[in-house]
Amino acid sequence: MRLMEHLDVARLLGTLAVMLGAAKLLGAAALRLGQPAVLGELVAGVLLGSSVLGLVDTHESAIQAMAEIGVVLLLFAIGLETDLRKLVRVGGASALVALVGVALPFALGYLVCRLLALPNLVAIVSGAALTATSVGITARVLTDLGRLQDPESQIILGAAVIDDVIGLVILTVVSELADGQRITPGGVTRITAIAFGFLIATLLLGRFLVPALFRWTEHLKLPGTSIVSAVVLAFGLAWLADRSGSALIIGAFAAGLLLAGTPHVHQVERGISALGHFFVPLFFISVGAAVDVKALNPLDPANHTTLRVGALLIAAAVAGKFAAGFAPWWFRGRKEVIGVGMIPRGEVGLIFAQMGLSGGVLDAGLFGAITMMVLVTTFLAPPLLRVLFKPPTGATTTAGDGCSDILDVN
Amino acid sequence: MRLMEHLDVARLLGTLAVMLGAAKLLGAAALRLGQPAVLGELVAGVLLGSSVLGLVDTHESAIQAMAEIGVVLLLFAIGLETDLRKLVRVGGASALVALVGVALPFALGYLVCRLLALPNLVAIVSGAALTATSVGITARVLTDLGRLQDPESQIILGAAVIDDVIGLVILTVVSELADGQRITPGGVTRITAIAFGFLIATLLLGRFLVPALFRWTEHLKLPGTSIVSAVVLAFGLAWLADRSGSALIIGAFAAGLLLAGTPHVHQVERGISALGHFFVPLFFISVGAAVDVKALNPLDPANHTTLRVGALLIAAAVAGKFAAGFAPWWFRGRKEVIGVGMIPRGEVGLIFAQMGLSGGVLDAGLFGAITMMVLVTTFLAPPLLRVLFKPPTGATTTAGDGCSDILDVN
Repeated sequence: MRLMEHLDVARLLGTLAVMLGAAKLLGAAALRLGQPAVLGELVAGVLLGSSVLGLVDTHESAIQAMAEIGVVLLLFAIGLETDLRKLVRVGGASALVALVGVALPFALGYLVCRLLALPNLVAIVSGAALTATSVGITARVLTDLGRLQDPESQIILGAAVIDDVIGLVILTVVSELADGQRITPGGVTRITAIAFGFLIATLLLGRFLVPALFRWTEHLKLPGTSIVSAVVLAFGLAWLADRSGSALIIGAFAAGLLLAGTPHVHQVERGISALGHFFVPLFFISVGAAVDVKALNPLDPANHTTLRVGALLIAAAVAGKFAAGFAPWWFRGRKEVIGVGMIPRGEVGLIFAQMGLSGGVLDAGLFGAITMMVLVTTFLAPPLLRVLFKPPTGATTTAGDGCSDILDVN
Repeated sequence: MRLMEHLDVARLLGTLAVMLGAAKLLGAAALRLGQPAVLGELVAGVLLGSSVLGLVDTHESAIQAMAEIGVVLLLFAIGLETDLRKLVRVGGASALVALVGVALPFALGYLVCRLLALPNLVAIVSGAALTATSVGITARVLTDLGRLQDPESQIILGAAVIDDVIGLVILTVVSELADGQRITPGGVTRITAIAFGFLIATLLLGRFLVPALFRWTEHLKLPGTSIVSAVVLAFGLAWLADRSGSALIIGAFAAGLLLAGTPHVHQVERGISALGHFFVPLFFISVGAAVDVKALNPLDPANHTTLRVGALLIAAAVAGKFAAGFAPWWFRGRKEVIGVGMIPRGEVGLIFAQMGLSGGVLDAGLFGAITMMVLVTTFLAPPLLRVLFKPPTGATTTAGDGCSDILDVN
């Protein structure tokens, strides 16, 4: 029986069943082929999306909402597994990787567009689309491979988070530019201060408040209290982050960091991992489903310009982020791992492209080229990281090995 | 960062945080007062709903969708805890309680309306609104009280499920009547056969297919496989039930029954209970939020007719279902428990009222009266069941006692 008649609940449940089933099957297939499970989920999304089977409509708000909850829970779970002291210890390296990883791809993307004789504003929007790393994809791959605690991974994680905040600043600036507004250095400084200030203020205040809050909830003596409290904290801080001018997932990540040190972390991890098994694949399926494979068909001459520009943007995107991995000269670990880990652009690049298209700055061809760049960088990183993290020859690996605690409740 | 710009994800996350937080706090308060937690969740819904604080909009499709997933997961979890043989053993009693519990409230409601000189069709729709028990509310209360395995509870559960299928048949018939269509005995028989046929066919076929399917998924060796497979089964059967002309939650309940006997049940229960802690309160908050307290203000003379008709319908609704509990004359248990357990009408009654209103059969006053009946019966059952199940004087009870395994992951 339905609460309200205008929502087709049955269709939604059917769609979710297909999405989750396909994610699991292709995730398992990816593992068999020695790839991270997330690659299979992305492929499942492409197959179910509007350009192939048309079973998943990413514009349907209920599915969209649950996909977003997926990425919020993922970043919360990653925060839970992150030792803040470790993160601070690699903070310098992360900051440098983030800064170079924003500046270099932007400059390369801008140059590519100018060499193709595109207008200044088009070059700025295209360059901006190359800047922000998709922390969701990389964090998930590192989790799939069981490498989240490696120093390289911590640098990537820190850089991706800083990147995301910088991406937010660039997004605000570029959207004002695209609207024809003038921007001032003071305005940019203010946006930047708010974006980073939220994270720092939350961590400082939360250090005192969160453990007290969780001790208090223990008195409620109600089943499910610890998991619900954790979700309330994650969603509440995500909301607060957004309202303060920072990013949703920064709030969720901060919530995870705050709980990471408390005695409740294991209880919370168990519950969140079950929620994650439901919500997280919905996010990756949605990312895959947003891909329009028809626009990438090389046999259609209409796509040739798009493919050529796309190929150049991909080269700029990959080269820029890969080089950024080598920026922290003092770090003695595997810098190529950091570079590859920063490659995926995911949904953030798509937001820039969408904004440019709806603002009239980008035409359909350039929009397609940026989408292609996002697609290729997203699909490139998982297998490359897998190769880089390959166990020495002779050692055998099972699927279970590659999965850290947080996603391992079964 | 957002996947799509037109969905205000931050607002949604904030709303969900408030809903879950309020549900936990008022659920804990209800427990302190010796009431089932679900009563606190319903009150939280009333407070957050549009007629008081206006923080929760039940028409927002993402929240609506998650509330529906809540009731689907709840029925799935109840199915997981149900022993089919036990259910079949009390099948005769359940069927009789269901039949009398549909016929008697319908007749009483029809009579009340005819005595108030209302037209024939109005009396039929109002009577129909009194028929279907809300299995969600009762099942949750029995779970909260830790009494799901009592024979009385099994009879209630079976009767509520049969009731729901009968309610579906009545809904189809009444909606055809309200549209001015003629109905034939052949048509009614066909609808009834499909509605019950689905449940029987699913259980017979699933007995062979489901264990084989779950054995096969073990080879996937991917974390989260058992919980995702269970969700896929529950959602898939809910979808299939709806498409076959049966009810969503019947499919979810059947999925639970099918897994109940398998070796995977404990793994599945652990995962589903974490999902349940998130989704189930959203359903009860939504039920509460649909209540318009302003229409029930006795100080406003405009509400007097509504309140008078509502009071008569409540008397008919309570008396009819309570009497139905005494129908299985051979049962030696506590028949008053069965009668009280069948009282809540929940969302099903609201669907009838909504249909009557939008079809022009009911005016706003009668719509309000039926809403009031749904509200009072829903809020009446939890404390009454609590009193009936009270432990003997001298025995102390803690909150934890009242909670069965399925909702007890903490």
